Amino acid sequence: MDKRVYNFSAGPATLPEKVLRKVQEELLDYKNYGMSIIEMSHRSNEVKSLVEETENLVKELLSVPGDDYKVLFMQGGATSQFYMVPQNILKSGDSASYILTGSFAKKAYEEAVKMGNINIAADMKDNNYSRIPDFEELDFGGNPAYIHLTSNNTIYGTQWKSMPETSRIPIAADMSSDIMSYPIDMKNMGIIYAGAQKNLGPAGVTLVIIKKELLENIPESLPNMNRYDVIAEADSLFNTPPVYAIYVMKLVLEWVKEMGGLDKIDKLNKEKAGFIYEVIDNSNGFYKGHARKEDRSVMNIPFRLKDEILENKFLEEAEKNDLMGLKGHRSVGGIRASIYNAMPADGCKALADFMKDFYQKNK
Amino acid sequence: MDKRVYNFSAGPATLPEKVLRKVQEELLDYKNYGMSIIEMSHRSNEVKSLVEETENLVKELLSVPGDDYKVLFMQGGATSQFYMVPQNILKSGDSASYILTGSFAKKAYEEAVKMGNINIAADMKDNNYSRIPDFEELDFGGNPAYIHLTSNNTIYGTQWKSMPETSRIPIAADMSSDIMSYPIDMKNMGIIYAGAQKNLGPAGVTLVIIKKELLENIPESLPNMNRYDVIAEADSLFNTPPVYAIYVMKLVLEWVKEMGGLDKIDKLNKEKAGFIYEVIDNSNGFYKGHARKEDRSVMNIPFRLKDEILENKFLEEAEKNDLMGLKGHRSVGGIRASIYNAMPADGCKALADFMKDFYQKNK
Repeated sequence: MDKRVYNFSAGPATLPEKVLRKVQEELLDYKNYGMSIIEMSHRSNEVKSLVEETENLVKELLSVPGDDYKVLFMQGGATSQFYMVPQNILKSGDSASYILTGSFAKKAYEEAVKMGNINIAADMKDNNYSRIPDFEELDFGGNPAYIHLTSNNTIYGTQWKSMPETSRIPIAADMSSDIMSYPIDMKNMGIIYAGAQKNLGPAGVTLVIIKKELLENIPESLPNMNRYDVIAEADSLFNTPPVYAIYVMKLVLEWVKEMGGLDKIDKLNKEKAGFIYEVIDNSNGFYKGHARKEDRSVMNIPFRLKDEILENKFLEEAEKNDLMGLKGHRSVGGIRASIYNAMPADGCKALADFMKDFYQKNK
Repeated sequence: MDKRVYNFSAGPATLPEKVLRKVQEELLDYKNYGMSIIEMSHRSNEVKSLVEETENLVKELLSVPGDDYKVLFMQGGATSQFYMVPQNILKSGDSASYILTGSFAKKAYEEAVKMGNINIAADMKDNNYSRIPDFEELDFGGNPAYIHLTSNNTIYGTQWKSMPETSRIPIAADMSSDIMSYPIDMKNMGIIYAGAQKNLGPAGVTLVIIKKELLENIPESLPNMNRYDVIAEADSLFNTPPVYAIYVMKLVLEWVKEMGGLDKIDKLNKEKAGFIYEVIDNSNGFYKGHARKEDRSVMNIPFRLKDEILENKFLEEAEKNDLMGLKGHRSVGGIRASIYNAMPADGCKALADFMKDFYQKNK
């Protein structure tokens, strides 16, 4: 019998057990083809269908208007999108505007400045990235070609509760850590990208959803592998894609659909986060959350205890209770519970119960 | 009971059954951690060790002098290396020299010309890429910063039997389709790269072996994800790597070691190819190989029959005998048998027997 713990890792992260069992079951013999999906040619009809079905599931679950957007499966994680977005979209003379709400937003900005003229709409550094800027704090500086933001900040545990009003300027959003966790308003979305390893599947595939009009006039001087238009034209089969990672993503998306889609998942995620935030809020300051209350993330909950000795004790005892991966990121310290779609409600309850118990014994 | 066929696909390709069974066995619970390796943080000691052990296996099996070279695990396949090699290595004013022996060599060249000053040392197009150039046909044009070649040509079934003498000019070799199939002389090797999906594991990870002196003076203006020095400095953990693909690669390398290492694998591969070439050579022209005899690949064997109707019949009947993935690439047509390390000798014998039988019935 396989042992399974609750894994609160920030990514790569826990996957639905049902998905893993399916992967295991058909690992040596995919759909009676007598070979593994890992071994199957990317030029086979089976793999072409797999990629197409995964694309359709993305569109269906996120209600992406199929005529206006193209779904791509790429490689290199969100970190590669940090430079590909400006490289593809910024034309000579254009500028883009970046909202800095955390480490990854800043990394995206630093890669973008290598590619073109970038300004900063807001930088939350002075608040140690503990909050999302209010709309009136944003200065987009003229007429940027796009506005970049990070929808959920894994390290600091903040999350945009709705997209800023951009007066039709397209938004480029890194949604690596909250994609598929709630319904998105696609209205001003120009490009959405997400590394798979939090809410979508294994590390090694990057989901890109791009407005078709942004595929025009991409410079032919760019390497083919970096050109959204080339990858779009080939339906993500320009070179050998990470077939296996796309296959697992498809199973995860089917699971999301079975769970009732994004409205249901959203509701469930809020309940799950509620169990943990409730303990923090009722601990008389024993647990201190990092994020401003109204900007709290439903996906990542970083918090501190009063000293590091107690935090280490917390982590040790949590592990003894099979609550794993709770150590906070070094830039915030303390504890972080990442509770993506695939973390069951029972895992969040188990953590909340442990926290209550630990509080009682150590307050 | 899982059904298993013989899969002659050019890549993604067959993997050792023993490896797949191990993957299956520990899919939900890796080493008693209570989670899958797919779900495990890339910052965990377990994944750090995994990457390090895989690096060490690469060095050990290929006898790479560890002090002089760094092993990297990247993403985007060989196609991304087509531009990263010149982007990283070509300094302003330098040129590089490319040997065009097939489609992928040409693609590498076309991406390189976007990045700098590239000349052609030889182009085998006029022979429809049916042979490797003789050393005296190569014109490196002055003093190139590196010489690029494709060690094995998947589509045309040709293979370099030894590296050309380059008078210490470093060689950049795309070894995607024959890496780990024989011992390499590292003497003039500057950089070796290989997509994993033929001889190393699943699509989605790219092996790069680079001479450490080439890591110096890489322009800081490049995107971080494209900089060999940045990836090297982070021991391939600069961003989330494709952990799962590296894990399977490690199991494949352990299997290569168990098989007796590259001398043994080389001998076995030559025997395997021998079964099939023997049938071609003794068919009185019924089967016509594409490549010049002395340049024949041990990995990919493309051949034609006298007409397309007979070729289709061959493919149909082969499939009925569980010999799959034999359709040739559209640019050569006909049949192609790809027989990488993981194709068992019994698979090659079964194909050879089928070919003999088909010849007798249709000659």
